[in-house]
Amino acid sequence: MATEQQATDEDDFAKDRYGVSAMVQSQERLGRTLIRVQDLTPEKANQLVWVRARMHTIRAKGKQCFLVLRQQQFNVQALVAVGDRASKQMVKFAANITKESIVDVEAVVQTVEQKIETCTQHDVELHVERIFVISQADARLPLQLEDAVRPDVGVEEEGRATVNQDTRLDNRVIDLRTTTSQAIFRLQSGVCQLFRDTLLQKGFVEIQTPKIISAASEGGANVFTVSYFKTSAYLAQSPQLYKQMCICADFDKVFCIGPVFRAEDSNTHRHLTEFVGLDIEMAFNYHYHEVLDSITDTMVEIFKGLRDRFQTEIQTVCKQYHSEPFKFLEPTLRLEYQEGVAMLRAAGVEMGDEEDLSTPNEKLLGRLVKEKYDTDFYVLDKYPLEVRPFYTMPDPHNPKYSNSYDMFMRGEEILSGAQRVHDAQLLTERASHHGIGSHSNSSCYEDFYSFRYGAPPHAGGGIGLERVTMLYLGLHNIRQTSMFPRDPKRLTP
Amino acid sequence: MATEQQATDEDDFAKDRYGVSAMVQSQERLGRTLIRVQDLTPEKANQLVWVRARMHTIRAKGKQCFLVLRQQQFNVQALVAVGDRASKQMVKFAANITKESIVDVEAVVQTVEQKIETCTQHDVELHVERIFVISQADARLPLQLEDAVRPDVGVEEEGRATVNQDTRLDNRVIDLRTTTSQAIFRLQSGVCQLFRDTLLQKGFVEIQTPKIISAASEGGANVFTVSYFKTSAYLAQSPQLYKQMCICADFDKVFCIGPVFRAEDSNTHRHLTEFVGLDIEMAFNYHYHEVLDSITDTMVEIFKGLRDRFQTEIQTVCKQYHSEPFKFLEPTLRLEYQEGVAMLRAAGVEMGDEEDLSTPNEKLLGRLVKEKYDTDFYVLDKYPLEVRPFYTMPDPHNPKYSNSYDMFMRGEEILSGAQRVHDAQLLTERASHHGIGSHSNSSCYEDFYSFRYGAPPHAGGGIGLERVTMLYLGLHNIRQTSMFPRDPKRLTP
Repeated sequence: MATEQQATDEDDFAKDRYGVSAMVQSQERLGRTLIRVQDLTPEKANQLVWVRARMHTIRAKGKQCFLVLRQQQFNVQALVAVGDRASKQMVKFAANITKESIVDVEAVVQTVEQKIETCTQHDVELHVERIFVISQADARLPLQLEDAVRPDVGVEEEGRATVNQDTRLDNRVIDLRTTTSQAIFRLQSGVCQLFRDTLLQKGFVEIQTPKIISAASEGGANVFTVSYFKTSAYLAQSPQLYKQMCICADFDKVFCIGPVFRAEDSNTHRHLTEFVGLDIEMAFNYHYHEVLDSITDTMVEIFKGLRDRFQTEIQTVCKQYHSEPFKFLEPTLRLEYQEGVAMLRAAGVEMGDEEDLSTPNEKLLGRLVKEKYDTDFYVLDKYPLEVRPFYTMPDPHNPKYSNSYDMFMRGEEILSGAQRVHDAQLLTERASHHGIGSHSNSSCYEDFYSFRYGAPPHAGGGIGLERVTMLYLGLHNIRQTSMFPRDPKRLTP
Repeated sequence: MATEQQATDEDDFAKDRYGVSAMVQSQERLGRTLIRVQDLTPEKANQLVWVRARMHTIRAKGKQCFLVLRQQQFNVQALVAVGDRASKQMVKFAANITKESIVDVEAVVQTVEQKIETCTQHDVELHVERIFVISQADARLPLQLEDAVRPDVGVEEEGRATVNQDTRLDNRVIDLRTTTSQAIFRLQSGVCQLFRDTLLQKGFVEIQTPKIISAASEGGANVFTVSYFKTSAYLAQSPQLYKQMCICADFDKVFCIGPVFRAEDSNTHRHLTEFVGLDIEMAFNYHYHEVLDSITDTMVEIFKGLRDRFQTEIQTVCKQYHSEPFKFLEPTLRLEYQEGVAMLRAAGVEMGDEEDLSTPNEKLLGRLVKEKYDTDFYVLDKYPLEVRPFYTMPDPHNPKYSNSYDMFMRGEEILSGAQRVHDAQLLTERASHHGIGSHSNSSCYEDFYSFRYGAPPHAGGGIGLERVTMLYLGLHNIRQTSMFPRDPKRLTP
């Protein structure tokens, strides 16, 4: 590889062994194999390997320079020491490489006598024979990675910097390099994968629904307006109507993953103006619990898959943000709304039978359920009809209730769903009861036209990806589980 | 199951065997098993089964009534005949069920002596013993399904209705019920699945990128504006910058699937204002061809997977829209831009060395490549630098060219990609060469700030889901491969 040599002493015997490489411009296709940091284990002892990694920390000490090289969630100690492979100029060069630069090193893997507790690769260190800078980082970083992963113990330790959330988000690309962020978003990728794999195995079809729509859903509140050529349009607040159309179009079982937009001016730990919805809709034969079972099965498969395949990630996040392991039951606990209300009343809450749950009461109920049943996940079924949207199917046995349900993780709602009214006549009645007329501007009414051409009974629901990730990991702010979060005050980066 | 009985003759011995069912409101959870139409084969001969399906066609003939029951891509003939299981009133009831209604039938599976060529289930028919309407369709349908699947032979046959595209799209829910639409969108779901499975196996991480962005990408042309609380924002025209930020944040190999918005006033067969982008970005070691190989591998895995796992769907679409099977080579054919230009010139096209390819020339080149190499898929590498965006890496050996590529299916472009400039200094130079200053309003410049903190060499590209589906199946309008297409003139349903 062509290199721009450092200006070096004429006497430097190692002058070809270090330097700043020419920009990688695809000059030639090298056959060289680069070893992953996570694969640097005692089995590789005494091998000469090439590694590309970030310069995480650098500590010069006389004729030696200790480096920590980082690659995603993993890091390894490396040593450049004056000797027959490295000159004092080379050690000085290494000591002056800026943090976060990307380097290629050629080194011998050596086992160590005492475990290196500060690195993920405890048992080995690299004895560097060549070191080249592939991409040089500015000397001044807007935040220090060590500060950004310091355990969140609730109190600030004296003399130890912490990084506040806005600094993190303003410099998100650097914040995303922390072991914690790497773990969060790898696990999040896993949530999507487990959701899809489970549903595809059950015969679901993946659909794509439009995000630009002609009429605001559900009355037009909290919707973003888009200029659309010479007219206006809106951003979809939910794919629900389109999922339902797919059911009426005989796709039988569908799911979709995509952005959902909410123009709510809510500045809380759990609201975003744009989030990722994982949505399900499914025709059933005789009872909406067929669908409810499919959804809870899917959630349980996600929880199991995360527990079994993402333990490294869970542990990594736990090091910074401690939480108890997420608990769930099989089969999933299902309580009726009235049972939930009774538990709250027994705990001193005063509320009416058909009153909706407030957020504090949801949290309290979550704690009561955890105490009684030892689960962080449960379903509350049979909500009062009046607190649900007009297209919710009434309970056949008690007209005050409905065939609808919410699901909760650690006491916070993650899914709201229901059997939908599939009968065109009842839908018209329910809409007019809610003051939604056939001439209203609501697409959620107009587009139900297709139900007149035969609609199977169906039910569904949707979860928010960021909320599920946050609550599974026991985190406390949804901005930690959105790579580039959007809220009323943040549109960048 | 409770049923609202038809007003029937007192003498009707079969009066409990047919009727309109009460609306399925989840009254009780029946254990009854419904058999799928595609599973109605001679192995089930003489069994009494329940089936739920659409009433596709009805033909009454004296004391008999022939039905075709449809379920997604499959259909079966059924017979209601006056006898000891059905009265004349029951036959009359069946004969009057509206097309597209959903019915439950209990019937005996009977093998037939002569194959029923008009049904997918050739070898059996159902002898109906009970029939109940689950959801009744309006008698007047906006389009007839038989008309909507009539083979497209280029000329209209006398006396045979065809359905024009706007009628289809205005009544998309019914149009999506055709065997052709069912096949198209099941195959499209497969494209996503194959794309992801291939990349996850290669160690890619799935990411989610924001669709609401603060500054218009690449100069601000063709971008939709969104009202965002007290300010304005834009809809992302591409996830590219965010993919690149993820690479700079050490995710190494990422992909995303999501909507892409283009405010282009193009009313062509291949443009949509909203489509689904399947995007890849990947750090590489020494040469961008490492990435190019990953992308072409992925495309080949998609083509193979479709060929091997979706043959039923391909054949179903072919019955209506004939096309030649999609051909591809392994390894993928890669031509340099200059070779492409030479082939065009040999065919009589006059064009400059550094001139971009026009759409007709792309199509012509596709035909020439097909003739010479017998492939419908190839890569054109090393585009002239001047016709590519400022962040494209120049060719190290010839500054007039670049490390960039397009991919083509049946002569139409489906992917545009490149090695990106990862060096902050060169990026500034290239931006200023293109007249994009550091104080410009372009996020595509501002947000490259992160490159200053160390960026690995990387490359990527993105494909359009609807285009890939269209071209793979040899269809001629992208609206056929978007469930709910958006173009400058269409925002509904």
